[in-house]
Amino acid sequence: MKRLSILGSTGSIGVQALDVVARLPGRFAVAGLAAGRNVERLAEQVRAFRPLLVSVSDAAAAGKLREMLGGASPEILHGDAGAIAVATLPEADFVLAAISGGAGLRSTAAAVEAGKPVGLANKESLVLAGELVMRRASERGVTILPVDSEHSAIFQSLAGHNRDEVRRLILTASGGPLRQVPADRMSAVTPAEALRHPNWTMGAKITIDSATLMNKGLEVIEARWLFDVDPDRIDILIHPESIVHSMVEYVDGQVVAQLGVSDMRGPISYALAHPERIALDLPPLDLARVGHLTFEPPDPARFPAFTLAYRALEMGGTAPAALSGADEGVVEAFLAGRCAFDAIARVCAEVLDRHRPEALGSVDQAIAASDWGRAQALRRVG
Amino acid sequence: MKRLSILGSTGSIGVQALDVVARLPGRFAVAGLAAGRNVERLAEQVRAFRPLLVSVSDAAAAGKLREMLGGASPEILHGDAGAIAVATLPEADFVLAAISGGAGLRSTAAAVEAGKPVGLANKESLVLAGELVMRRASERGVTILPVDSEHSAIFQSLAGHNRDEVRRLILTASGGPLRQVPADRMSAVTPAEALRHPNWTMGAKITIDSATLMNKGLEVIEARWLFDVDPDRIDILIHPESIVHSMVEYVDGQVVAQLGVSDMRGPISYALAHPERIALDLPPLDLARVGHLTFEPPDPARFPAFTLAYRALEMGGTAPAALSGADEGVVEAFLAGRCAFDAIARVCAEVLDRHRPEALGSVDQAIAASDWGRAQALRRVG
Repeated sequence: MKRLSILGSTGSIGVQALDVVARLPGRFAVAGLAAGRNVERLAEQVRAFRPLLVSVSDAAAAGKLREMLGGASPEILHGDAGAIAVATLPEADFVLAAISGGAGLRSTAAAVEAGKPVGLANKESLVLAGELVMRRASERGVTILPVDSEHSAIFQSLAGHNRDEVRRLILTASGGPLRQVPADRMSAVTPAEALRHPNWTMGAKITIDSATLMNKGLEVIEARWLFDVDPDRIDILIHPESIVHSMVEYVDGQVVAQLGVSDMRGPISYALAHPERIALDLPPLDLARVGHLTFEPPDPARFPAFTLAYRALEMGGTAPAALSGADEGVVEAFLAGRCAFDAIARVCAEVLDRHRPEALGSVDQAIAASDWGRAQALRRVG
Repeated sequence: MKRLSILGSTGSIGVQALDVVARLPGRFAVAGLAAGRNVERLAEQVRAFRPLLVSVSDAAAAGKLREMLGGASPEILHGDAGAIAVATLPEADFVLAAISGGAGLRSTAAAVEAGKPVGLANKESLVLAGELVMRRASERGVTILPVDSEHSAIFQSLAGHNRDEVRRLILTASGGPLRQVPADRMSAVTPAEALRHPNWTMGAKITIDSATLMNKGLEVIEARWLFDVDPDRIDILIHPESIVHSMVEYVDGQVVAQLGVSDMRGPISYALAHPERIALDLPPLDLARVGHLTFEPPDPARFPAFTLAYRALEMGGTAPAALSGADEGVVEAFLAGRCAFDAIARVCAEVLDRHRPEALGSVDQAIAASDWGRAQALRRVG
């Protein structure tokens, strides 16, 4: 029985992870749960999975949760310290890091320091501080298993093959809801339109990042650190059906890929059960019924955001953190109707232009750079 | 430096294997070559690669080759005994078994008995006697590496994953040159038409087998023994572009696949260099340029041949050998203009109907069953 701490348990990934746990009685136990402000859902999860420790965003949410649970309440903490306590809980054998955004970095880093194997769904942990987090994971002998479908696909396509024979990683991208929107309509795209993702049900921030292709750029940064591959050997390929989840090309020109239906429970269960697989009753992939898979190059003219990730990696140090923060800020503004869709990439580029990258020495420094990027972006759209 | 014996060196696979060897000076040496009657090409190969031992089909061919090579001639043998001597040559570290048809079985079996790792391009070795060959390989600790693109793809898609977590093997098939020919035209298909394979350049027998889908049926039999998977967990999927070379579905519904351009030097070099990969200057797979991959179920009404392979496996023992022999006979008759295209599957089915399978005890027995099937088929078309 593997005992899990789930950070971000009320978000999209957290909920699906608990769905996997619930389908397999006796296989997993839930040791800890960390969430934000959704105390109603967290209360249900506490009743169903009986963790030893939970954490919420702040004291008010903690009070509310305590009241809802009454006498059946486990220990309830809050804030960064609470999430870190869940991430480092001695009773946990595995930490699923699924807090969204830059807020996830501290708890991921704490889990690594505590020597816990991590299932990583929080891409910002590597976008902001990949160099640091991976170095510490290596020093502590900690396994980091990707939970993103693309990185899980690459991980699965690398298994059993020689790392030094990799020629290219190929990250596939659905192209998002705006794939076929012409360049001259980009400025008029509404939040509702950009939130209509064709294949995946995800949170609002990542869905907008999917629409701009910033998400794919952030995944390039994540892949760069997770697999220790130079950015010029990481390519993006638009694949609207999201069936081929990503690929690895080897030096002999042969390509290994992982395919599947668009259901995050696949990569989530892979990370949770690794090195085993779990027989889930998900619908199997029926390619004869799918019929067609299509591929096209990404268009940097309509979707310049992904190119900024390569630029940030080239700038190095704190630049990816600044880019990530800028994107968080401007996407928030876009969702609130405070800027146009095509302002997202433009503002991020401007913030990156102004950034003076420093060598990355600490998690605090990465978060400061992200906060700086965010503030810069908000100032520009405000 | 790996020293190779190549059985079937003047055939399609043999020639491409020597192309790989020639591109990588210092990596491989050629210890032995076995061929049939193409002494002109064999003489060129002997001059280029300087093997210690060669073998040809018969004494006349041996005499001719000796004359052509003059004083620079290595030892020249002939017949089954000659091919077996090349297969078991003490100086060879690796045997590429690429003699086409049932004739390849004895030399493959001899290589296994001699403890040589085998790159297997001769599918009949496993179609006729897979149970025996794999059992002996296991007892002798011999690795058998597939050279068929499909089986190489499955082998690469199994690497690093748990064998007991495999749910299905999915063999892709181009569908051959007659994929879109309507049922009522099948009887009128000419040899020239059936030989026009859209993606692969191969020998005549295998190209006709591709057109009937018998080839895919024989590959199901091969996969059954090579990977020890029950036939009801081996599926066929038509994929006209031949880019996805085959796939493995795991119990969690996730699929791992190997993709590449249609160039046999990919799987050949993989087998030759295993467990390493060789950097070949083959054109890389550019999926953005390919644009579309299509998939459809195989049509047993127009292509009944592939279903016979499942039937033969169910009958067991010598039945697959009888089917393979029947196919060899009737394809030969078809190529000579002595029967219609749709007679191929019909005659094979009739031969299988008449076959009384015996448990398989020896290579001789498998060859006898194949010879019986061939004679039965030729009698029916004659």
